Amino acid sequence: MAYITSSVEYAIHCLLFLVNNEDKPLSSKDLAELQGVSPSFMAKIFPKLEKAGLVVAQEGVRGGYLLAKPAHKISFLDIVNAIEGEKPLFECQEVRGKCAVFNNAPPDWATNGVCAVHAVMLQAEKAMRDALGAHTLGDIADRFGRYAPDVFFSDVNGWINERIEGRTAKMRKSKTPNN
Amino acid sequence: MAYITSSVEYAIHCLLFLVNNEDKPLSSKDLAELQGVSPSFMAKIFPKLEKAGLVVAQEGVRGGYLLAKPAHKISFLDIVNAIEGEKPLFECQEVRGKCAVFNNAPPDWATNGVCAVHAVMLQAEKAMRDALGAHTLGDIADRFGRYAPDVFFSDVNGWINERIEGRTAKMRKSKTPNN
Repeated sequence: MAYITSSVEYAIHCLLFLVNNEDKPLSSKDLAELQGVSPSFMAKIFPKLEKAGLVVAQEGVRGGYLLAKPAHKISFLDIVNAIEGEKPLFECQEVRGKCAVFNNAPPDWATNGVCAVHAVMLQAEKAMRDALGAHTLGDIADRFGRYAPDVFFSDVNGWINERIEGRTAKMRKSKTPNN
Repeated sequence: MAYITSSVEYAIHCLLFLVNNEDKPLSSKDLAELQGVSPSFMAKIFPKLEKAGLVVAQEGVRGGYLLAKPAHKISFLDIVNAIEGEKPLFECQEVRGKCAVFNNAPPDWATNGVCAVHAVMLQAEKAMRDALGAHTLGDIADRFGRYAPDVFFSDVNGWINERIEGRTAKMRKSKTPNN
């Protein structure tokens, strides 16, 4: 399994449909179906994004998720941390204290501070996290907006409107006395 | 499991005992026991380091491994790649082409080039690899040499000499006609 899993990939692609959408909340099922990924998979991921304060959930028949803050304030690192937790790139086993010449009693000089090997791994992890933190959902949406044709956005809006109307119509029907 | 596994950690710690050692080859078993890690584990790792050209194996009773090049020419990235292979941080599933409005026939503009989400992950991976590539086995050995006391190095040398002498004595004994 890759360090950054497909949960993150699916989430980012779904979240992109919430950029510049402030008034049409979409459920995780709507977003999953619009993006063509597994709805049951996304149903587990969106609560994590909500818990991390990246999306807000609105209740009711017109309920669903909206971004909790501007897309330019949601970095890739925020999304990775929300889904994967702040998992380390490397887990130091403190091997340095196990050298045979220490006879199971490593001296302080050998175990003080961070192991030099671990320190390099932490620098590599920081470099990776800094790069993820330097890109936001807003940046990617802007980039996408520059090459996707207008028809794509109107098709997506049509899909969303149809989905919301379908949901409302179904609700109206279930409230009709004869049904 | 962390992205950079304990195989890399164990290997680096073992390799450090080969820095500034040009004439006393050590087997993976010697190095594992000196470092206090599993010999059977290291027996699987050293052939990978040899295949990657980081160590050379010398045959015979006085055989074992030596560094194949100066320690300042062996980066952490070389060691990670030798052991883990060049595994990606993220495996793009090309989700972008699966949007419902494409009806299973994504247009070229949607799938050309590298996905913008994948591009960010590749930048993060490059940042991590650059950081790993900027540190060498020699750097860490130098750093270690600045804070480890002289007695540590003489103890290690004593351990190595004893191990080599033990091996040679065993060999002499097995060649004695009465044994």
